[in-house]
Amino acid sequence: MKKIKVGIIGATGYAGVELVRLIATHPQAELAALSSVSYEGKKISEVYPNLKNICDYELENEDIVNKCDIIFTSLPHGLSEKFAKKCVEAGVKMIDLGADFRLDSADEYTRWYGKQYEEKALHDSAVYCIPELHRNNYKGQPIIGNPGCYPTSIALGLAPAMLDSLTVDNSIVIDSKSGVTGAGRGLADNTHYPNCNEAFAPYKVAAHRHTPEIEQTLSKLSGTKINVTFVPHLLPLNRGIVSTIYFNVKRKTIAQELHALYEQFYAKEKFVRVLKLGEVANLRNVKYSNYCDISVHYDDHTDRAVIVSTIDNMVKGAAGQAIQNMNLMFGLDEDCGLNFIPPAF
Amino acid sequence: MKKIKVGIIGATGYAGVELVRLIATHPQAELAALSSVSYEGKKISEVYPNLKNICDYELENEDIVNKCDIIFTSLPHGLSEKFAKKCVEAGVKMIDLGADFRLDSADEYTRWYGKQYEEKALHDSAVYCIPELHRNNYKGQPIIGNPGCYPTSIALGLAPAMLDSLTVDNSIVIDSKSGVTGAGRGLADNTHYPNCNEAFAPYKVAAHRHTPEIEQTLSKLSGTKINVTFVPHLLPLNRGIVSTIYFNVKRKTIAQELHALYEQFYAKEKFVRVLKLGEVANLRNVKYSNYCDISVHYDDHTDRAVIVSTIDNMVKGAAGQAIQNMNLMFGLDEDCGLNFIPPAF
Amino acid sequence: MKKIKVGIIGATGYAGVELVRLIATHPQAELAALSSVSYEGKKISEVYPNLKNICDYELENEDIVNKCDIIFTSLPHGLSEKFAKKCVEAGVKMIDLGADFRLDSADEYTRWYGKQYEEKALHDSAVYCIPELHRNNYKGQPIIGNPGCYPTSIALGLAPAMLDSLTVDNSIVIDSKSGVTGAGRGLADNTHYPNCNEAFAPYKVAAHRHTPEIEQTLSKLSGTKINVTFVPHLLPLNRGIVSTIYFNVKRKTIAQELHALYEQFYAKEKFVRVLKLGEVANLRNVKYSNYCDISVHYDDHTDRAVIVSTIDNMVKGAAGQAIQNMNLMFGLDEDCGLNFIPPAF
Amino acid sequence: MKKIKVGIIGATGYAGVELVRLIATHPQAELAALSSVSYEGKKISEVYPNLKNICDYELENEDIVNKCDIIFTSLPHGLSEKFAKKCVEAGVKMIDLGADFRLDSADEYTRWYGKQYEEKALHDSAVYCIPELHRNNYKGQPIIGNPGCYPTSIALGLAPAMLDSLTVDNSIVIDSKSGVTGAGRGLADNTHYPNCNEAFAPYKVAAHRHTPEIEQTLSKLSGTKINVTFVPHLLPLNRGIVSTIYFNVKRKTIAQELHALYEQFYAKEKFVRVLKLGEVANLRNVKYSNYCDISVHYDDHTDRAVIVSTIDNMVKGAAGQAIQNMNLMFGLDEDCGLNFIPPAF
Repeated sequence: MKKIKVGIIGATGYAGVELVRLIATHPQAELAALSSVSYEGKKISEVYPNLKNICDYELENEDIVNKCDIIFTSLPHGLSEKFAKKCVEAGVKMIDLGADFRLDSADEYTRWYGKQYEEKALHDSAVYCIPELHRNNYKGQPIIGNPGCYPTSIALGLAPAMLDSLTVDNSIVIDSKSGVTGAGRGLADNTHYPNCNEAFAPYKVAAHRHTPEIEQTLSKLSGTKINVTFVPHLLPLNRGIVSTIYFNVKRKTIAQELHALYEQFYAKEKFVRVLKLGEVANLRNVKYSNYCDISVHYDDHTDRAVIVSTIDNMVKGAAGQAIQNMNLMFGLDEDCGLNFIPPAF
Repeated sequence: MKKIKVGIIGATGYAGVELVRLIATHPQAELAALSSVSYEGKKISEVYPNLKNICDYELENEDIVNKCDIIFTSLPHGLSEKFAKKCVEAGVKMIDLGADFRLDSADEYTRWYGKQYEEKALHDSAVYCIPELHRNNYKGQPIIGNPGCYPTSIALGLAPAMLDSLTVDNSIVIDSKSGVTGAGRGLADNTHYPNCNEAFAPYKVAAHRHTPEIEQTLSKLSGTKINVTFVPHLLPLNRGIVSTIYFNVKRKTIAQELHALYEQFYAKEKFVRVLKLGEVANLRNVKYSNYCDISVHYDDHTDRAVIVSTIDNMVKGAAGQAIQNMNLMFGLDEDCGLNFIPPAF
Repeated sequence: MKKIKVGIIGATGYAGVELVRLIATHPQAELAALSSVSYEGKKISEVYPNLKNICDYELENEDIVNKCDIIFTSLPHGLSEKFAKKCVEAGVKMIDLGADFRLDSADEYTRWYGKQYEEKALHDSAVYCIPELHRNNYKGQPIIGNPGCYPTSIALGLAPAMLDSLTVDNSIVIDSKSGVTGAGRGLADNTHYPNCNEAFAPYKVAAHRHTPEIEQTLSKLSGTKINVTFVPHLLPLNRGIVSTIYFNVKRKTIAQELHALYEQFYAKEKFVRVLKLGEVANLRNVKYSNYCDISVHYDDHTDRAVIVSTIDNMVKGAAGQAIQNMNLMFGLDEDCGLNFIPPAF
Repeated sequence: MKKIKVGIIGATGYAGVELVRLIATHPQAELAALSSVSYEGKKISEVYPNLKNICDYELENEDIVNKCDIIFTSLPHGLSEKFAKKCVEAGVKMIDLGADFRLDSADEYTRWYGKQYEEKALHDSAVYCIPELHRNNYKGQPIIGNPGCYPTSIALGLAPAMLDSLTVDNSIVIDSKSGVTGAGRGLADNTHYPNCNEAFAPYKVAAHRHTPEIEQTLSKLSGTKINVTFVPHLLPLNRGIVSTIYFNVKRKTIAQELHALYEQFYAKEKFVRVLKLGEVANLRNVKYSNYCDISVHYDDHTDRAVIVSTIDNMVKGAAGQAIQNMNLMFGLDEDCGLNFIPPAF
């Protein structure tokens, strides 16, 4: 089979360069073009010296759509539509790692991102896809909206409970913690080393832009409008997200029953590992891999379930899941090129 | 005034050596004796070389009660009663930094710690004291049970709401995160550097021994039995606790009202700083100090309050609060010797 | 081709579990047996949950030699000879990641390790091998002594200069810094998180056991007895070694000439990347990979060269180089199974 | 005694805010005015929330010289002269924490900093002062050039050997490592958290601006022109410098003799602690304090001494030493307000 020609727009952002790394070892895909506004003309290995002698592609700032079978866009919100249009016109597939193709509701998009959907038709031909939950929604659409990092960890952590209508209305509290790569490559006071080393705090308390995406997924799963309280925190480490998810259960249950529900739901999913009852999910066990580890807990003195869901924000939360979606689009095995083993340390 | 003669039993544990550091600069107190089973005969500065030339006291393993006006015990649970007895008999005050004098209920103590209160009378003559909340309970008792680190951050974060009966029954969720010094000096797999660096996870999910202490305090404040879901996490940093506390509110409120309640409640408290609405508490701002910073947030789309409370687990969460309690016992200003300014980094 | 059957003795140590991870994706090798004294009967994924569903092999404590084509031993010094004997007798190849087959001189071994070479003949049939420097020394010997982590970074950093007889006698100073995984899995005070986080110091100053190995390699390269001052330091991070190497030059030179010497020497070596003049080697660019990055500097106001050499201590410094040696033994391309791309973060 | 009125120009830089913290508890000094160009009109506690309720001074951008008895300037190089002139004219003392009053040679200043000494007379009335080495040089000069962080650690680490003419010419190699606060408050790629966490590298190899300051001090101590190779590295931690210093010795010596030389030299110095032979200096033992810990080692197989010298770069390396110099200027005990005990963690 001829390898899939991959183009990355926004290749020097953190998700972009992670895509470069993962595509470079994908057995069925190859890098065809890398685009960057800021570093046009430089080699990507000059910007990221870890890639020296491995990927020395020159960064372009031209139209790379026609050189590719698929385009990954990894851009600030509001910039993906124009590339989507080009891709659709050229018959090139596209996966957007940004926020522009995640929300069904144009109003919600405007409310949270302050911009408009300019081309409504484009959004109708796009599908949001966490493969474990939505792969059946993929029916050849040209565009996939790749899920956000927090929403991926949360949707996977709540899906079995939502589908089982187990959660008490309005009882879901999500306390998430993310490594600093989640904030991206741009310099900022809160990611200056002495400011976030030996520091810890939440940010955008109950006001993070991933909230509508989380609620959209959960509402669809449960068939009813779900509101959640979502509070992200910045962890002093590079990679990984832990979402600790709390909800009250509608009917009397016990830990074993809850755990069995999760085990059964994910029994055939390679990338979701439901830990044994009594074990606790730790982000160190999924770092640098496409796994999502989930541990299930039950506080019987308050009748509240606690689910711990952890992913690598740059892999399952961004580039890895995007490749999983690419594999889905091209009819490859979903794990193709994604068999990274999380290191022990 | 003659300085208070201070003895520390368990001086080489983390809380113990932090007490040494703080007492060494206290204007009204002085170290009289340090006790350690493991390092008898060594200088404390041989065990902790940071103290070289500053505090070179020899560690004893004898009865130090009679040399002192007050004894701080910082020991594994179950070991403090015998020292308490000696202190009471000798007319020496005692502050226990361990768990043995925190719980009113002997049954709860047995349930969570697997041991008995051997001397019930001792516990009747002890008082549990977070000074900001309980200083009026101190009426000359010989023993103070110094609060735990998590419970301190949580009680201070919830007190205004509890006293105002604002919380919906059974809606309190507490997601706490602690630096590794909270696990103490003992070697363990989960505190081996490569295991907790670049790692993050909860532990003892809904099963931590601080739960009954938290519930005891909240129940007393609210006048009704309070159950909470409490999940602690281990943060990859040395010092500090952040508790993110969620609860539904009983009556319609708005962020401003909630914030005003907190500001008013702590208006005269030096060591509790209620941040302005919109600011977020960060443990970096309280490290190495006795401050508790609290930020107040309100998620109006779920009618849920979010309180962020942060302390230095070794200071306000242990040694600093113990000294605040010592000051209370001896009629000194509560902040005497505790005016440490948190460094910017 | 039938895959090489690999056995690992000491599989639950840090180098052992890293071998497991790397062998698990090697296209020409497969795990045949894992041995561990401490965890016999457990699955390796119970000890290292990152391996759950990926490698769930049970740990044995029996003779695994006969199940394998090659045995990797990763053991404390003094324990490898008995396995070497078994391997040689059974016609099974062996690579020792410990210290027992690195030193030619039995006296030096005794002096530094306090033990004897019991079976001298075994050592005669072993070869020490950093492939880039010693691959021609491999002539079918049954045993390879895999180099230590510090010595690998240092030998690669000094080889071009030594071969060119450029260094002034007795002028070599090596200041190395290693991440904490270098200290291994065992619990110790100096690797307890609060003791090594936000801390930094040298250890075993001019007295580290890697010194004779370093000097042996350098002496052979230069054809004269070389003594070095070697001071290792413990870095507060998980992985990686940086060796900053200083030496005076024998003849007048300039930075460009020195740099050209290095570039030429390593021109055909995939795993050694000589950076451009003006660039500085950083361990972040080689983490999780088999690369050694070297930058060349020259202080012309003291006529002293400064070479910065960095590797991942667990990959090129241990498991990766061991696999490179396995590939050499089995006539595979040296980079087979080792094409890990260092991540950008 | 009336308290010394202190003004800080550049109060929101890292050295500036550290000065604020230290002066705020100084028993004989008080903050009179804080100046900042970037944050004029804001309270310093809005910029550094750790200072909330402790120091809420408003930042000015006016002439604060006349309000003060002493001015600390903490500014990028080239900006201090104009304030020095004002201070001298107004009879106000000044301590410059920047680089403008450290070098005797105007040529060297121009060579390394690319600027001119505009007012030569000002420099004649300034004195460079590490109190332990130069206090006798202070004879009432109006301006003190406060030493750089690296040079302080190095000069203290080498002074006994230099005065004793023990070092072989041109044999001094200095490998220093600094925490990230040393790079200051400004945002930069190399201090973006994901770029320096789990990373390590030297920078400005043999080309750092502190080199002429180091050589100036050592040359004066030894009475002969000293050149050194100086290579700084960036450590992934907030505070502290470790300088590992290597030199060949001129005459046959032994470790004990070398150690005795150091012990004797610093016998009366409170802030320099020479560790026992066999101990190793670690920056964790001096953090947040004005101490310099020095350990002495000797590599007898190369006849090379190794000195490890560690300070907190923000205290003894900047604000603390500046206050020590202020105390000297005002005839106070040198340790006045500087008795901070380094915490154990």
